[in-house]
Amino acid sequence: MKLIKAEVVTIGDEILYGQITDTNSQWISTELDKIGINTIRKSSVGDAQEAILQIFNESFERADVILVTGGLGPTKDDITKKTIAQYFDDTLIINEHALAFISDFFIKRGREMTELNRLQATIPSKAKYLPNAMGTAPGMWMEKNGKVLISMPGVPMEMKYLMEYEVIPALQAYFETPVIEHKIIRTIGIGESFLAETISDWEDALPQHIKLAYLPSFAQVKLRLSAFGTNRNQLQKEINEQFDKVMPLIQPYVFSTNNEDIEAAIGRMLLEKKQTVATAESCTGGYISHLITTIPGCSVYFMGSVVSYSNEAKMNVLGVNKSTLDSFGAVSEETVREMAEGVRKVMKTDYGVATSGIAGPDGGTEEKPVGTIWLAVAGPKGTHAVKVLSTKTRIVNIQYGAVVALNLLRKQIIRDNS
Amino acid sequence: MKLIKAEVVTIGDEILYGQITDTNSQWISTELDKIGINTIRKSSVGDAQEAILQIFNESFERADVILVTGGLGPTKDDITKKTIAQYFDDTLIINEHALAFISDFFIKRGREMTELNRLQATIPSKAKYLPNAMGTAPGMWMEKNGKVLISMPGVPMEMKYLMEYEVIPALQAYFETPVIEHKIIRTIGIGESFLAETISDWEDALPQHIKLAYLPSFAQVKLRLSAFGTNRNQLQKEINEQFDKVMPLIQPYVFSTNNEDIEAAIGRMLLEKKQTVATAESCTGGYISHLITTIPGCSVYFMGSVVSYSNEAKMNVLGVNKSTLDSFGAVSEETVREMAEGVRKVMKTDYGVATSGIAGPDGGTEEKPVGTIWLAVAGPKGTHAVKVLSTKTRIVNIQYGAVVALNLLRKQIIRDNS
Repeated sequence: MKLIKAEVVTIGDEILYGQITDTNSQWISTELDKIGINTIRKSSVGDAQEAILQIFNESFERADVILVTGGLGPTKDDITKKTIAQYFDDTLIINEHALAFISDFFIKRGREMTELNRLQATIPSKAKYLPNAMGTAPGMWMEKNGKVLISMPGVPMEMKYLMEYEVIPALQAYFETPVIEHKIIRTIGIGESFLAETISDWEDALPQHIKLAYLPSFAQVKLRLSAFGTNRNQLQKEINEQFDKVMPLIQPYVFSTNNEDIEAAIGRMLLEKKQTVATAESCTGGYISHLITTIPGCSVYFMGSVVSYSNEAKMNVLGVNKSTLDSFGAVSEETVREMAEGVRKVMKTDYGVATSGIAGPDGGTEEKPVGTIWLAVAGPKGTHAVKVLSTKTRIVNIQYGAVVALNLLRKQIIRDNS
Repeated sequence: MKLIKAEVVTIGDEILYGQITDTNSQWISTELDKIGINTIRKSSVGDAQEAILQIFNESFERADVILVTGGLGPTKDDITKKTIAQYFDDTLIINEHALAFISDFFIKRGREMTELNRLQATIPSKAKYLPNAMGTAPGMWMEKNGKVLISMPGVPMEMKYLMEYEVIPALQAYFETPVIEHKIIRTIGIGESFLAETISDWEDALPQHIKLAYLPSFAQVKLRLSAFGTNRNQLQKEINEQFDKVMPLIQPYVFSTNNEDIEAAIGRMLLEKKQTVATAESCTGGYISHLITTIPGCSVYFMGSVVSYSNEAKMNVLGVNKSTLDSFGAVSEETVREMAEGVRKVMKTDYGVATSGIAGPDGGTEEKPVGTIWLAVAGPKGTHAVKVLSTKTRIVNIQYGAVVALNLLRKQIIRDNS
């Protein structure tokens, strides 16, 4: 089987000048990797016709498919579409499906459609229209000598929608891609190097066609097993065997074998056990609540949160004792325990999760440096509290504290129900 | 003056396969932009000799300077240095300064130096050595026909050190660089195409050497004006004149001329006016509170939040009337007004911001479809409520609702204080 090669081209002066981070090209190459298409180069060029034509020429020399993002907006600096038309010696025509979608988009919002908006419905006459349900810039698929150029908007949400629903299925239909089976194991509470040591014998014995990737994030490591071949049943069997071998080595750290985020895994656990939770957040500022509420249907098990930034809120809403705050301070085991128990009572839930810490950059002391975070979970069988130290920026300290708090809740639900 | 053109080349399989985000190229181009060097292309290639030679050839055709990161580690897959030597028809020799630094690095850490480490002290014989105080891979500066190739390690901290202390000063000494002045205007509550129409006469009349870029995000558009020339005072004067012309056209939508995020702009306004805020969030699930608390020092003006996902929490903690919920439902003007007023009272703040809506994907009705969000701000001079319809995914509906709520707060603070 021929290896399919891709190049990713992101277009936009704002990328070249460093005003925004290009996350699209990483996301796209990860998705291509999953279907066995090999990214051989990524390029960013500005909103300049000559540069765009040049990169199209170069990329088509090397690759079978070019995935382009950006430059599809309605304003004058967005020239990708007309440059594509020029490259394919084509003209732009109104696409009726695109026009109907855009008209509807404006009618629903009760807004007037401008001539600029109407022009967004044009695509090259030879292009296949890829409907973009997330915005007004259509996706486009163009072919030339058995090679393909795909154009998508630069807005990540719109690009991701098009990739998932249009581009990936079309690429799999157009090219003969290898069969790949993936298995994801998500762990929390064990560092990457410790995890690698724990499973090193198993990893060393993996056959050539099964690859393992470590993908670390806050307090977490995602393991991705990928098996490459031609026979899907055989690959599934092999990858399941490897999965059964590695799982006993790392079980306590695994929160999902289904590629769920930790907040989704907790939601599933609470649903199964018909239990509920609420949070009382100081330093995490509502971020735990935000993570929990990103999950559809969470209102069944999530009752709410009290973000008690001020001590008054800790006392008045959560019932933390003034004497506790006076004696031990807001960032203390005693306070965070009372917060967890308080929110559990106020919100009438099975579990209460609480955080209190110093997110930084200011407010640290020698005894309680920036990054000190107390976490507690109050449940039907009692309250547990732990202290962690995160030593990064304010935002990372908040995100880290939230994820560790969710892991504390996860462990307590397991303990209480075992 | 000749415009100096740069290309940034990041080398590494882990970038191509999407395993890590390349943040180096953004950072480098931002720094180049500040000294008036124009990044015309960014490319990422794998750890493969042929691909590296090809990108060097191409980039030198177009650009005056190539900045390369990655592939300088001690292991076999790091081949950048020997490929550079090959490209310049050169050989690698031990650099005594580099060797002394690396030896010292290992002595200080009490570790044995291996042959692989010793080889890190080699650089091409024609290269200028750029000392890297942050690690064991030296930076290199090579010249060819008045053009320059700079090689740096891929570790961001090491690259940044080299850029700041070696590369930027050397580039300014080697090339005659132009002067650039930027001005950022951040708007909210007006779409990109409406904004473009509003300012199109002004935009069309901009002189050739002043450029305008539109950078859209949730409910927001950032405008960036850039003036290119040789005389900084002159450019500052010109760009300020253009700024003064465009501002009256868009004043109500401008929340920052200082490149702050909306939550930072609101923090600044509250600090200036010595006022405070709290939030009562249903559909936004704590995300407004999270945004506000990403800003250092927010505890002065932010007292907290009640995420009232359940109706019980709306009644018990915020004091919403049962009859209001029964008659109008949780997603209604009446409820969201009582939430805003309730949290203002409970948290004893000047302003209370409330949201109640249907984030989706389920829970919509014909009368109240998914994406319906009621927002209210209660303040010292009364309460205002508005309804918006967001038609995206759950997470985007949450983010959009939060940003629009912050804008409602911004407008109310301005109205109350004018």
